[in-house]
Amino acid sequence: MPQVRFKISMSLDGYVAGPEQSLDQPLGVGGEALHEWAFPTPSRREAQGEGGAERVLDDEQAASWNRNVGATIMGRNMFGPIRGDWDGDAWRGWWGDDPPYHTPVFVLTHHPRASVEMEGGTTFHFVTDGIEAALERAVASAEGKDVMIAGGASTAQQYLRAGLVDELEIHVVPALLGGGERLFEGVGAIAGAFECVELVSSSVVAHYRYVRRRAS
Amino acid sequence: MPQVRFKISMSLDGYVAGPEQSLDQPLGVGGEALHEWAFPTPSRREAQGEGGAERVLDDEQAASWNRNVGATIMGRNMFGPIRGDWDGDAWRGWWGDDPPYHTPVFVLTHHPRASVEMEGGTTFHFVTDGIEAALERAVASAEGKDVMIAGGASTAQQYLRAGLVDELEIHVVPALLGGGERLFEGVGAIAGAFECVELVSSSVVAHYRYVRRRAS
Repeated sequence: MPQVRFKISMSLDGYVAGPEQSLDQPLGVGGEALHEWAFPTPSRREAQGEGGAERVLDDEQAASWNRNVGATIMGRNMFGPIRGDWDGDAWRGWWGDDPPYHTPVFVLTHHPRASVEMEGGTTFHFVTDGIEAALERAVASAEGKDVMIAGGASTAQQYLRAGLVDELEIHVVPALLGGGERLFEGVGAIAGAFECVELVSSSVVAHYRYVRRRAS
Repeated sequence: MPQVRFKISMSLDGYVAGPEQSLDQPLGVGGEALHEWAFPTPSRREAQGEGGAERVLDDEQAASWNRNVGATIMGRNMFGPIRGDWDGDAWRGWWGDDPPYHTPVFVLTHHPRASVEMEGGTTFHFVTDGIEAALERAVASAEGKDVMIAGGASTAQQYLRAGLVDELEIHVVPALLGGGERLFEGVGAIAGAFECVELVSSSVVAHYRYVRRRAS
């Protein structure tokens, strides 16, 4: 069965983006620390040894993020900094001409816009009729593969509250951001819904994987 | 130099106690999941192999909690469920006649009370003149050993905000409690103060250790 997955990096103090997000700092102040584990710098690779076991572990975790993913869903704030009307067709995401999704990407918005086809298989579709409609379209587009909820926090919380997520992967880095967007806010009801099936760590990130509990 | 240390178990969603704490459930609903890693059940020990490397790791982390600790500080809500006046001398903590501290324990309160000497070297002292006075007394009593801030969240936050903590150990378990007492609430200013010097995990808990950054 195709799974609905959500995978994100979080600071130890619970944030998935730092404070004061802006066009210049889309991840907020300090937010790049959330993702360094997945894009190790040459100096860190050298310090840890190129083929070291722990980098293999993190690389595997990073590489798995879009494995078997057939469609992606994201919130409008993750797609870009524009609020309200789209004001033309100029904004095409943060990721250049060839975004790293390589699937249809369904962007949740209240403002209609024509789809935008990018290079490499990514096409942005703008969905104005809610999270369930977006998920239906994503499942249909995924052709049997998984659907990835890409974020941000608000979008993830909506899908979690609606009970629509099958698998959670949370990568907890030791950064303390002190503010920003909290992931676990207003999702109290999910507490019993997931069980942890994997916890592994390197010296720079701990990877927690959860699956929805089966009805017993 | 003696260090001021704070060490606590936290759920992945950021809570150090579950919701609805009470006399019957001092850790709140689900809160016992925070501490299971440190007190493995016989069945888990069996499943993992008594001498398995990962239990050794967790056991070592659990055993280190009061190593070289000469005095302890805790908030009144951690000491017991009574609020307001002490109403006599009957309440002597949650821990029976021989509490696991084996040091002087300074309890922060607004309500004076005579010290209570327990078995095994634990004596509860009640401090009414604030966190800095409590720390001074703890440092003096510790005779060169470390001072442990035992919790709970509010007490830890006060010491963190005041910049009085030298070392943080956070043990993050995969439990999702969905509510309760958050550790990282209102301590934004500490974000830059600590650096992570150790991250190791078993399959049931990840251990993050931080030290205060040196002025450069």
